[in-house]
Amino acid sequence: MVNVGIIGATGYAGAELVRLLKNHKDAQIQWVGSRSYADQPYSSVYQNMYKILDAPCVDAEDHDTLLKLAEDVDVIFTATPQGFLGSLLKEDLLEKCRFIDLSADYRIKDVATYEKWYKITHQSPELIKEAVYGLCEINRADIKNARILANPGCYTTCSILSAYPLVKEGLIDASTLIIDAKSGTSGAGRGAKVPNLFCEVNENVKAYGVASHRHTPEIEEQLGYAAGKEITVSFTPHLIPINRGILVTAYASVKPGTTKEQIKAAYEKHYAGEHFIRLLPEGICPETRWVETSNYVDINFKLDERTGRVIIMAALDNLVKGAAGQALQNMNIMFGLPEDEGLENAPVFP
Amino acid sequence: MVNVGIIGATGYAGAELVRLLKNHKDAQIQWVGSRSYADQPYSSVYQNMYKILDAPCVDAEDHDTLLKLAEDVDVIFTATPQGFLGSLLKEDLLEKCRFIDLSADYRIKDVATYEKWYKITHQSPELIKEAVYGLCEINRADIKNARILANPGCYTTCSILSAYPLVKEGLIDASTLIIDAKSGTSGAGRGAKVPNLFCEVNENVKAYGVASHRHTPEIEEQLGYAAGKEITVSFTPHLIPINRGILVTAYASVKPGTTKEQIKAAYEKHYAGEHFIRLLPEGICPETRWVETSNYVDINFKLDERTGRVIIMAALDNLVKGAAGQALQNMNIMFGLPEDEGLENAPVFP
Amino acid sequence: MVNVGIIGATGYAGAELVRLLKNHKDAQIQWVGSRSYADQPYSSVYQNMYKILDAPCVDAEDHDTLLKLAEDVDVIFTATPQGFLGSLLKEDLLEKCRFIDLSADYRIKDVATYEKWYKITHQSPELIKEAVYGLCEINRADIKNARILANPGCYTTCSILSAYPLVKEGLIDASTLIIDAKSGTSGAGRGAKVPNLFCEVNENVKAYGVASHRHTPEIEEQLGYAAGKEITVSFTPHLIPINRGILVTAYASVKPGTTKEQIKAAYEKHYAGEHFIRLLPEGICPETRWVETSNYVDINFKLDERTGRVIIMAALDNLVKGAAGQALQNMNIMFGLPEDEGLENAPVFP
Amino acid sequence: MVNVGIIGATGYAGAELVRLLKNHKDAQIQWVGSRSYADQPYSSVYQNMYKILDAPCVDAEDHDTLLKLAEDVDVIFTATPQGFLGSLLKEDLLEKCRFIDLSADYRIKDVATYEKWYKITHQSPELIKEAVYGLCEINRADIKNARILANPGCYTTCSILSAYPLVKEGLIDASTLIIDAKSGTSGAGRGAKVPNLFCEVNENVKAYGVASHRHTPEIEEQLGYAAGKEITVSFTPHLIPINRGILVTAYASVKPGTTKEQIKAAYEKHYAGEHFIRLLPEGICPETRWVETSNYVDINFKLDERTGRVIIMAALDNLVKGAAGQALQNMNIMFGLPEDEGLENAPVFP
Repeated sequence: MVNVGIIGATGYAGAELVRLLKNHKDAQIQWVGSRSYADQPYSSVYQNMYKILDAPCVDAEDHDTLLKLAEDVDVIFTATPQGFLGSLLKEDLLEKCRFIDLSADYRIKDVATYEKWYKITHQSPELIKEAVYGLCEINRADIKNARILANPGCYTTCSILSAYPLVKEGLIDASTLIIDAKSGTSGAGRGAKVPNLFCEVNENVKAYGVASHRHTPEIEEQLGYAAGKEITVSFTPHLIPINRGILVTAYASVKPGTTKEQIKAAYEKHYAGEHFIRLLPEGICPETRWVETSNYVDINFKLDERTGRVIIMAALDNLVKGAAGQALQNMNIMFGLPEDEGLENAPVFP
Repeated sequence: MVNVGIIGATGYAGAELVRLLKNHKDAQIQWVGSRSYADQPYSSVYQNMYKILDAPCVDAEDHDTLLKLAEDVDVIFTATPQGFLGSLLKEDLLEKCRFIDLSADYRIKDVATYEKWYKITHQSPELIKEAVYGLCEINRADIKNARILANPGCYTTCSILSAYPLVKEGLIDASTLIIDAKSGTSGAGRGAKVPNLFCEVNENVKAYGVASHRHTPEIEEQLGYAAGKEITVSFTPHLIPINRGILVTAYASVKPGTTKEQIKAAYEKHYAGEHFIRLLPEGICPETRWVETSNYVDINFKLDERTGRVIIMAALDNLVKGAAGQALQNMNIMFGLPEDEGLENAPVFP
Repeated sequence: MVNVGIIGATGYAGAELVRLLKNHKDAQIQWVGSRSYADQPYSSVYQNMYKILDAPCVDAEDHDTLLKLAEDVDVIFTATPQGFLGSLLKEDLLEKCRFIDLSADYRIKDVATYEKWYKITHQSPELIKEAVYGLCEINRADIKNARILANPGCYTTCSILSAYPLVKEGLIDASTLIIDAKSGTSGAGRGAKVPNLFCEVNENVKAYGVASHRHTPEIEEQLGYAAGKEITVSFTPHLIPINRGILVTAYASVKPGTTKEQIKAAYEKHYAGEHFIRLLPEGICPETRWVETSNYVDINFKLDERTGRVIIMAALDNLVKGAAGQALQNMNIMFGLPEDEGLENAPVFP
Repeated sequence: MVNVGIIGATGYAGAELVRLLKNHKDAQIQWVGSRSYADQPYSSVYQNMYKILDAPCVDAEDHDTLLKLAEDVDVIFTATPQGFLGSLLKEDLLEKCRFIDLSADYRIKDVATYEKWYKITHQSPELIKEAVYGLCEINRADIKNARILANPGCYTTCSILSAYPLVKEGLIDASTLIIDAKSGTSGAGRGAKVPNLFCEVNENVKAYGVASHRHTPEIEEQLGYAAGKEITVSFTPHLIPINRGILVTAYASVKPGTTKEQIKAAYEKHYAGEHFIRLLPEGICPETRWVETSNYVDINFKLDERTGRVIIMAALDNLVKGAAGQALQNMNIMFGLPEDEGLENAPVFP
């Protein structure tokens, strides 16, 4: 039994962690942390959890309290704002338990890049090096022994997984990669802000963070490893009126003479054995509704011979494979459990 | 292991059965029936089931084929239009396996009432008597041995469960009962009709079937048993732009002098031990989002002393407790399995 | 040309006033007031108004500033929180211009009732008496000369207009009246609150303010005038995931022997000449989508002989006939303009 | 007064034409055509038009009837499936009145291209040459005297208008142009198809017609004129769960050394005097909600110096500027009316 604590359990990603862990037969939630709702029953914040998790939230956000809380658990998930874990994590905590961080604090190896895009001074840069980037399908071996697991961003997971085999196999010109992503609104968090009100999001679609979104350097770094060189990509996120789901449509010029069979083979080479990646039959486009509530990433592509480009499409649930589900998958790997434990349920539709 | 067949597996209720059965560790789907999609892979109709259920649909809709298919299974679920099972079911089929019918064919004991509201001539009226009305929390004892299980309607389940304790305990004047219900659009089925198109349903709310909806006699019959006399109720369904969920708001005059403590006690008397009924804390209104994808019914009430009425509220997921989930709960009871098996997952939010 | 000022122009009702006034050929907006967005271009708050209304918002919320601003206008609309106008309005202001108040401050004649339901001490109770309740179809004569026009609430307008003819003509037992209302989310305002976030409202329906909503006494007072005696009603509002629209479904016992022809005649007697009230053909239920963006109220009913009740249905756009449109209709009456000026556009669908 | 007939008045684009024409003071609808709803009151099909347009629909879809109906009107709008007008239009009809066609039949000059992408044999290829492509802001001069006006597609209008100035001024490499478009569901029409049901579209986003959508050659032809040479573009449409609205996000490599001032100047050169094109302030992204129900196109761009690309964004209402509104704008030009007549209303929000 893996004993678990969650800091930031009352955000959407934290709440999804709670939901998934409640369905996990080898993990046990020991405490749920929330500063905003400290001492309130968890189920008074998320009424779906009534009679399922009624324990009060704890305020776990100072070092000493956390040090104590860490004694009861094997792993702590932090679904917290950027900079939180970076400012709190020390060796003493790492001696008590392992950390799976859903923020960006340990995702980017180059501190200067992190500080430039996030406009935060990193408080524990010495720990970045040992942190493992938790994109399970690509970094599985390193994840097993991680003490600090940097869980990838939602856009990032979808973007990297969809382009990775083609970059790795050199079938596309990585410098032409353009990623146009569409996300459900849970990705914007549960903060009370006018732009996220129902009437502002409903019946609307917009781009945001154009040429400046923080997931860009994370995508560039990881795909750069695959390419074996530094690359820059165009990445544009869009907000659409759905609760969950990310769809990525990506465009890249293929190397001259590339066939669709070669592209298909590249995907199969890297993903054929991956439980959570579904390569769809030819002609079927990924749609967010088919992966909702599950840990799947659905991927497909179309080679457009008129333009010499491949159009890559991928869909995932931003709260599951894009956040809590991947965090759980990482936990399973870290603790030697079957990788799909707690993540076996079929996607919900409609 | 309970072996299962499903007729009508490509409607929304049928698909929900498939999803839930796939998460059920003691049940096994042997075949999925669909005339419209016969011979097509199930996952080509519901792409969420890709790599989960790729077997082709069978056309199970004639008697001889069904007789043969029945040999492989212990129970057949029929998520089919009104009149289908009524016209097909014979003793020879019942000798092979048990039936859980999600249509209305065996719900109403009085054939004349059925034929009047449904405008269908019942083809097997001799079987109605033995059929058991599968409202688990109320008819549990009879369900165990049922050969024909009449699974209740979605509106009906929500309406009856919310009012039952007050009718049974005589705290309200049953003749004053008014039920105003709001349903998500999956309740309207997957048929291709203009009124169910996205642009027709989205950004709209409407009443329909006013004073004539077919679930009315079913509510009246069951609550009449509780009241110990015939009753008539006003029932008005509404269509709202959500995928899943039913909310019932019901109004009734309380017997003079009735206190909120008495009302609370009545609910607790009947439901305190029920796993799938959650009586909410005072002041918390049921909301469909808190039960989505789960088999819960959330219930609460407000006694309005100004008007002498109690306002009863209840929420459930029309595809789960209102259809497939309750059908599975019935199956569990019928086959001696734990009642919540395959139904343990916490509600999904958002 | 009627010169107009608006206080609270950056809430949803205020913004709808701006939109409608911009389409009104005999009215001219002189200034738009907003404390939160003072000195910011109006179109930076509502980007739809770019190149249409780019003037900066003024902070008009203190007495002296307002006194000055009042000199430029014939009428001031206040789309402000409860208590705002009540605390500001004095004879000196009324000497400068007329007021159309979209809050509840002058709607309820009995100060004690107002203070009990709104939990606010009224600061200008001496002005309540002269204020005219602006339900145009019922109070047209008094509206003409009003200095203070109390514009009715959104739920109230829909509730009163739908029941009024039957109460007035004595066809129903007013003590049995139950009003179940469903509202779009713009009715909840533009304040940044968690319960109004997209992911909280979307895919959900809930009742709120059960047996305690502030529009109840307003409905009771106005229908009491029609009944010729005090009445109490059950009123339950619900929040649904649409931007605009209110649907009322109301239930009442008819006097014994009442026929549907009598009910129809009552509606025609009071509304046949009313431009903005559409009595629908038999069998057609009102739907919010058919009135969206317009000032129409669609009304119909069904007499249920089984239960002896009439089910009344009415739909309107909460921001138009339920707020800004009715305010404009009142302005037209007050200033001798054609009543439908600026309100002629057909409803938008889809 | 321009007398107008509409064929296909019961589709979404046709209904939008009806709505807009009803608000137009110099146009008069003489008849509305619909084969599916022939002889039924128009308002029974679109209940929003009750008491506004109750006349029955006529079946205008054979040549002789149409020849007769044409006598009563100055212009006929055809909001009909591809191939309809192409198969019906003859010189005799053109002698009676002018035609504004909302289908693609006369948009593409090269018959072979039309027939390849639409898989229809064109029945009146001799008329294609004289037809004028009705993109008002670009072809205004030719539109004035058109007998056959080919009204542009919704995706096309948004795509062309957003990229045109940069192609025309040679600031981008047209061969790198990638257009990622997101559309509301009204663009899919009112046909009763499973993929357009509420529960299928809601809570989903998908790409469709990847590398094969019929609007592609129309975009390529028009932008090719601007470029002065043949070009190919990548165009990917997406379906999102909103009623109205198209957002285009386009990507192109700029010519080396291009500055944002140059790009801004190009837009201003072509659009500064255009009433219906709003070039947004720097940093403000177009959103569909801000143009809804109006004829505006909101455009902006971001120059990304890291990647050497410009990201162009544009939003319009697919039923207005993308269909009926532009058709009306064309009618205004053709009949010498003020170009914005009937199109003056501010966008509706929310």
